[in-house]
Amino acid sequence: MTEYEKFKQLIDKGSSLYIPQLSLDCVIFGFHQNQLKVLLLKMRTRHDWALPGGFIHQDETLEVAAARVLKERTGLDNIFLRQFHTFSALERSNPQQAMKDFAMEDLRIDQHHWLAQRFISVGFYALVDFTRVTPQLDELSEICTWYDLDSIPPLMLDHRQILDKALETLRVQLNYQPIGMSLMPELFTMPELQKLYETILGTPLDRRNFQRKILGYHILRRREERRTGVAHKAPYLYSFDIKRYQEALQEGLHKW
Amino acid sequence: MTEYEKFKQLIDKGSSLYIPQLSLDCVIFGFHQNQLKVLLLKMRTRHDWALPGGFIHQDETLEVAAARVLKERTGLDNIFLRQFHTFSALERSNPQQAMKDFAMEDLRIDQHHWLAQRFISVGFYALVDFTRVTPQLDELSEICTWYDLDSIPPLMLDHRQILDKALETLRVQLNYQPIGMSLMPELFTMPELQKLYETILGTPLDRRNFQRKILGYHILRRREERRTGVAHKAPYLYSFDIKRYQEALQEGLHKW
Repeated sequence: MTEYEKFKQLIDKGSSLYIPQLSLDCVIFGFHQNQLKVLLLKMRTRHDWALPGGFIHQDETLEVAAARVLKERTGLDNIFLRQFHTFSALERSNPQQAMKDFAMEDLRIDQHHWLAQRFISVGFYALVDFTRVTPQLDELSEICTWYDLDSIPPLMLDHRQILDKALETLRVQLNYQPIGMSLMPELFTMPELQKLYETILGTPLDRRNFQRKILGYHILRRREERRTGVAHKAPYLYSFDIKRYQEALQEGLHKW
Repeated sequence: MTEYEKFKQLIDKGSSLYIPQLSLDCVIFGFHQNQLKVLLLKMRTRHDWALPGGFIHQDETLEVAAARVLKERTGLDNIFLRQFHTFSALERSNPQQAMKDFAMEDLRIDQHHWLAQRFISVGFYALVDFTRVTPQLDELSEICTWYDLDSIPPLMLDHRQILDKALETLRVQLNYQPIGMSLMPELFTMPELQKLYETILGTPLDRRNFQRKILGYHILRRREERRTGVAHKAPYLYSFDIKRYQEALQEGLHKW
């Protein structure tokens, strides 16, 4: 049986395999060359793009299902992955459009088909090491690739809203939890880390203020080595203090 | 038709009325006499207690459904209400137990009945003005009442976990957002507000440190009036600065 035939079978059997009317969508963030990027899919039958997503098996938790989807799209295990919001607007589902899209793939579904129902979707965001990811197509897509956050193409359904909400969550998180361990390489300079913060916040930060604050949280370790091969004075290298970072993830950076 | 007959009809028709296998549970917090309280229900057929909850109509968003449940249990509209997590552990559902519980109510359901399935549940927390609430029974319960956070009785299914997660969310929120506007009376003293923070955090706070920090956020307005009729020197009264409070809810208290 070919992959496509297997997929056709899933579409037929879906109503007994999956939790009905519930899906998940993943906003996968990566950081590379001072750009925050998001992994997107383009389906063969559509002009707009989509977040990677999937359905939840009857014997899976949401977290297991999201990890499975991420593994399928990125090849990675053990990803930093968090639920952030469940989306339930009535207009987010478009059964008519779904029927048309599947018809173009020669998959005929009628209005009673499980895929032609209203879907509520659980949003997850993931922070991944860009360099370790090999984007993988799913059965309906022809491209799976990274887009810079400032040049996201038109997205289908409410995926732009889901992406914006993930980013908002990340921005809020930035103000009370450490961030970056799964986005940065092991060693990095202070300007590189500041660039990550600036990219997520969408605004420049004062260099000295940033350094003072981030060092004040004691989540960084300054290394003996310095970055070499740069034009100016060789900058210090830092890594995250894993123990302190984990504690701050639990307890927050600010306390009463 | 009696209320109970209407309810029986809902149970019969549920599979066409509601999103299948999806429910919601509400952790309703109130603050009164220096105690943080949670609204709980006791069903007639069970010895343990339950969070107020319900199902989502096919034409409702999660938020509308949660507001409806809250209105039914508290009589209140326009409650501060937030989604905080969607719970999907496999063991959280217990179809056998559900069948037994309903049988005791003379509601026979078999294993194919919509109520005897695995349920994924969206958790909401609400912060309400204790004094404005009149707790209301639902069709299966014999008591609906407030419990102090430090004397919560045994809860059914994973409701204790849902409560703990709501509290954890509130504790984290406390560190980066203002809190209390929907929990405190309009006018309050500094020690009263401090008590709310201490109750949520489960730990005493230094009086002077608390005062310095909370005033530093500029979310409070000191009033001309003082609290009278107390033994010691009459303490100042405060109210929330609504505009600044709303801004801080949006932007957070700490910024990069």
